[in-house]
Amino acid sequence: MDITALMRDPAVAKALAWAESHAGQFSEEAVRICEIPAPTFEEGERAKYVRGRFTALGLKDVTIDAAGNVRGRRPGTGGGPGLALAAHLDTVFPRGTDVKVKRQGARLAAPGIGDNSVAIAGLLGMIEALNAAGVQTQGDIYLASNTGEEGLGDLKGMKAFMADVKNKVAAAIAVEGMKVNRLIHVAVGSRRYKVTYTARGGHSWGHFGSPSAIHILGRAIADISRLEVPKEPKTTYNVGVIHGGTTVNTIAAEADMLVDMRSVDTGALADLEKRVLAVVERAAKEGDGLAKLEMVGDRPAGSIPADHPVVQTCRAVHQALGLQTFSEPASTDHNVPLGMGLPGVCLSITEGANEHRLDEYIETGPIPTGVKNILLAAVALTAGK
Amino acid sequence: MDITALMRDPAVAKALAWAESHAGQFSEEAVRICEIPAPTFEEGERAKYVRGRFTALGLKDVTIDAAGNVRGRRPGTGGGPGLALAAHLDTVFPRGTDVKVKRQGARLAAPGIGDNSVAIAGLLGMIEALNAAGVQTQGDIYLASNTGEEGLGDLKGMKAFMADVKNKVAAAIAVEGMKVNRLIHVAVGSRRYKVTYTARGGHSWGHFGSPSAIHILGRAIADISRLEVPKEPKTTYNVGVIHGGTTVNTIAAEADMLVDMRSVDTGALADLEKRVLAVVERAAKEGDGLAKLEMVGDRPAGSIPADHPVVQTCRAVHQALGLQTFSEPASTDHNVPLGMGLPGVCLSITEGANEHRLDEYIETGPIPTGVKNILLAAVALTAGK
Repeated sequence: MDITALMRDPAVAKALAWAESHAGQFSEEAVRICEIPAPTFEEGERAKYVRGRFTALGLKDVTIDAAGNVRGRRPGTGGGPGLALAAHLDTVFPRGTDVKVKRQGARLAAPGIGDNSVAIAGLLGMIEALNAAGVQTQGDIYLASNTGEEGLGDLKGMKAFMADVKNKVAAAIAVEGMKVNRLIHVAVGSRRYKVTYTARGGHSWGHFGSPSAIHILGRAIADISRLEVPKEPKTTYNVGVIHGGTTVNTIAAEADMLVDMRSVDTGALADLEKRVLAVVERAAKEGDGLAKLEMVGDRPAGSIPADHPVVQTCRAVHQALGLQTFSEPASTDHNVPLGMGLPGVCLSITEGANEHRLDEYIETGPIPTGVKNILLAAVALTAGK
Repeated sequence: MDITALMRDPAVAKALAWAESHAGQFSEEAVRICEIPAPTFEEGERAKYVRGRFTALGLKDVTIDAAGNVRGRRPGTGGGPGLALAAHLDTVFPRGTDVKVKRQGARLAAPGIGDNSVAIAGLLGMIEALNAAGVQTQGDIYLASNTGEEGLGDLKGMKAFMADVKNKVAAAIAVEGMKVNRLIHVAVGSRRYKVTYTARGGHSWGHFGSPSAIHILGRAIADISRLEVPKEPKTTYNVGVIHGGTTVNTIAAEADMLVDMRSVDTGALADLEKRVLAVVERAAKEGDGLAKLEMVGDRPAGSIPADHPVVQTCRAVHQALGLQTFSEPASTDHNVPLGMGLPGVCLSITEGANEHRLDEYIETGPIPTGVKNILLAAVALTAGK
């Protein structure tokens, strides 16, 4: 699609101008959202606020779904493909974190301001800009401000949202706050396990030779650490956390590890998982212990190529806005559509730094560009042939 | 000394009869002690309880000393050698372990019930039996319920107790709960290390391949777990406790283990130590990390021969009680007197199994015999020539 031509459409041009002239409003919205705490699994209060905004902006079918996602739909005129557009509600910061936003010139600083308050504000700003200019898309836009993107949320909100709309949309965009020049179209998949070994144990002297959960765990880690994985498609593993045993002279009856496996390729990830689990079971068997497996993370891998029409459209939007496009594989809500075989990308709203840290901040200057970024992508991706 | 003659002494005979008829009381005392948690270094609450019992039983000089040992003295009439008699307070089970005792017919089951609650109960029972029968020993009996026998306690309580009484006693008996037929007069030497690995670490995806302290530790444990050690002289090792890492998707910058090495033979112990430390260093080198070594335990070996008068006396007590004496080298509080060149043995109170495990249990049937065992040994070893 010719994005520069699209930008000359009178209604679209009016929407872009509206976005450009409402920078202050977007920042204030980001501040309001940020100051409502929303740790993963505790997004309810922030969700209620966003639901109020969805309703005020005239979206249809506004609701908070069973997964805690705020949902809404902006109907199109028909004749174009549907689009899913989501910005996650949750933050990595536990309840009790000071989320009061500090204004530092053109910067806003607070935990979660960039990841992901400004993205939600951008989503709301896009809807308001489309409304203000009377832009009618062809396909419907299915909107969500979703739960569970961070940590152990395991993308639960996006999984529920996409399961619901997958037959109504042709593509999905996850909106993140930072790195406005970034266009992600490769999803790093991950599988995470907690492995707990149990074994007979006993006294280190009296029962020497009795099975040790720690000795079994050590052998498993040693074997995992020697697994060969492909550089392309990039595939990784990590034993990140271990615990085990009670005292120096007790043969350990229990020991556990957290194992992280990632790949940009579903097949490579599945193959790695199979090999790791084989090591885990073999170590238990050889060491006369038992392995208990608990899956604690499951993010699908997937990708669309750089020349996929959806990626090309998003890159054309970037170019038209003067953005310096770069790509990197990552793990965000866009993993979910890609894991379903649906085109999915991740776009961003502004610049900033220190995400997942208490000194997180964003620059407010690029926000209108970020709003135009998702607005143009949404209009273009819902246009009929 | 003629133990069968001693048993015919009217006061001693009365004490033995008293012990025989108070089996239920000994069991209840073991239960009460067991249900007061006493992890090594956190023996305070149990110590206070035992201090109360020492006081109630009329012991002299009752106190909790600087090492946390409960101390007391049962004065003799004079003319006989002093005797040190100790039963450790501490257990291998961390705070939070369920120490509620389950009664299963003639069995009592709970973590720590045999190691060492029933030994403390036996010590208290012995004092009460002596008191009830008006038995007056010749030498003083110096009593302790001491700290730090397990794990990283490194016999600290017994070391402090023996340092204090070594010039007042001619022998020492450590009392353990299980294996009533056992008479230990050889001390197993041990060396214990805390090994801390550090490595560069990083993000599990972005820095895959960067050195991991956990992966290094795993390889070290695997190699240690495959070391061959002699059956004779008996030599053992154990990686008893491990920790490492921060989150599942962080390559660990730090991980540590506690390693226990033991042998009845000084040379075999030194050889094992050399091989374990070589594994530790090789793993660090291969894995591009650093190993920090900290010696956290050093228990000297030591022994008195089977025909030593103290051993002969204890064996005669066993015979008189119908016990089937066996000896094995071990590492308990008796290492301390033996390491000082003072005659030291370890005697026990009852039968049981699964020490250092959550399913530890004891048989209550043999307890009176165990109380008589230490009572007769104490009277005999404090008798003048």
